[in-house]
Amino acid sequence: MDNKKKVPEVVIRRLPRYYRYLDELDKSGKTRISSKELSERMSVTASQIRQDFNYFGGFGQQGYGYNIKYLLSEIEKISGISKGYKVIIAGAGHMGHALANYSGIQKRGFKICAMFDNDPEKIGTNCNGIEIRDIKFVKEFIRQENIDIGILTLPQNAIEEVADMLVESGIKGLWNFAYVELKTKKPIPIENVHLSDSLMTLSFKINQNSQAAEDMN
Amino acid sequence: MDNKKKVPEVVIRRLPRYYRYLDELDKSGKTRISSKELSERMSVTASQIRQDFNYFGGFGQQGYGYNIKYLLSEIEKISGISKGYKVIIAGAGHMGHALANYSGIQKRGFKICAMFDNDPEKIGTNCNGIEIRDIKFVKEFIRQENIDIGILTLPQNAIEEVADMLVESGIKGLWNFAYVELKTKKPIPIENVHLSDSLMTLSFKINQNSQAAEDMN
Repeated sequence: MDNKKKVPEVVIRRLPRYYRYLDELDKSGKTRISSKELSERMSVTASQIRQDFNYFGGFGQQGYGYNIKYLLSEIEKISGISKGYKVIIAGAGHMGHALANYSGIQKRGFKICAMFDNDPEKIGTNCNGIEIRDIKFVKEFIRQENIDIGILTLPQNAIEEVADMLVESGIKGLWNFAYVELKTKKPIPIENVHLSDSLMTLSFKINQNSQAAEDMN
Repeated sequence: MDNKKKVPEVVIRRLPRYYRYLDELDKSGKTRISSKELSERMSVTASQIRQDFNYFGGFGQQGYGYNIKYLLSEIEKISGISKGYKVIIAGAGHMGHALANYSGIQKRGFKICAMFDNDPEKIGTNCNGIEIRDIKFVKEFIRQENIDIGILTLPQNAIEEVADMLVESGIKGLWNFAYVELKTKKPIPIENVHLSDSLMTLSFKINQNSQAAEDMN
């Protein structure tokens, strides 16, 4: 596998989709899939799929199809989800609670080790079996427990300060739910989840449909 | 404004980002911005920005820059967020609660009118001032109140049945948080929010960084 090749962002973003589809196929008992079949399911051309997979060393045999379990395990290796990355959640508000209870995180092999907040009423309680700790001690915790990923579900005004604390403590990546395009002093991988962007996209499409309907009248 | 031109998906998805940046600029007191400045902030080329805006009739004057408030209000019109779309949340679990409390939805002009669940313990209670109702009555509610958007925060096994109920009742779009690529019998706009995809993308980038670090040793 050639790890030196720079993988374009669009390809990186297609990997989880491949993974979802292949996971479904695997669960339905299928063992092999051709790039043609996969392409139909995913609305991506077969040649695009072959190109994408070539970034990671190919994965399959021409004319014979891909072995689904093998593909899944390769994608798990490439995405690091086979490593069982350790996660903390900073911010034990509604979104923090929702994520602590979101099965998708643990199903993908991530381990939520603790939650942090500054609210004395929350500190010491737990959420879905995960202890809520004082945010004052987050740096020590990250260092001692070798935490890899910080999930940020904090109010917008607290986000940068906490993000920088996490980065100083050696966190390797941030998953940000606050309404900011987060940047940290030391650059590390950050995924910003802008839920309202997704809702706005939906709204745009609904609006286009109603305008098209009006135009037809 | 030419609404007949088909707007590519990538352009649609950039609109909320433009909106976020312009909103920040507006709040900081700025009134005008050149496509060059906007392009630097957004890491999109200036010509890309002009092309994007051309889908919606241009928005600005060459060499003079864009009027920020005007741009914002045009994007609001195009995205339908100036229409105050009415929303319900189906599923009053952790994610349903988080979204009922998520300020981004109401800030963008959407009105959450009710939540629905089938749990007798939840029915009749409320969440952030929003009443939780019996899912049995969701069809009538949608028809009577002219609900536009359904937010689906239900378990995976219930999602298709409820989605089809909502569509039959005349809902115009669905915002789906379940781990499925949702398809309804009658096609309407659907936004699937796959949180674990985003986490997997982050994980991929972290893993690439650690491999690059290992390769250097």
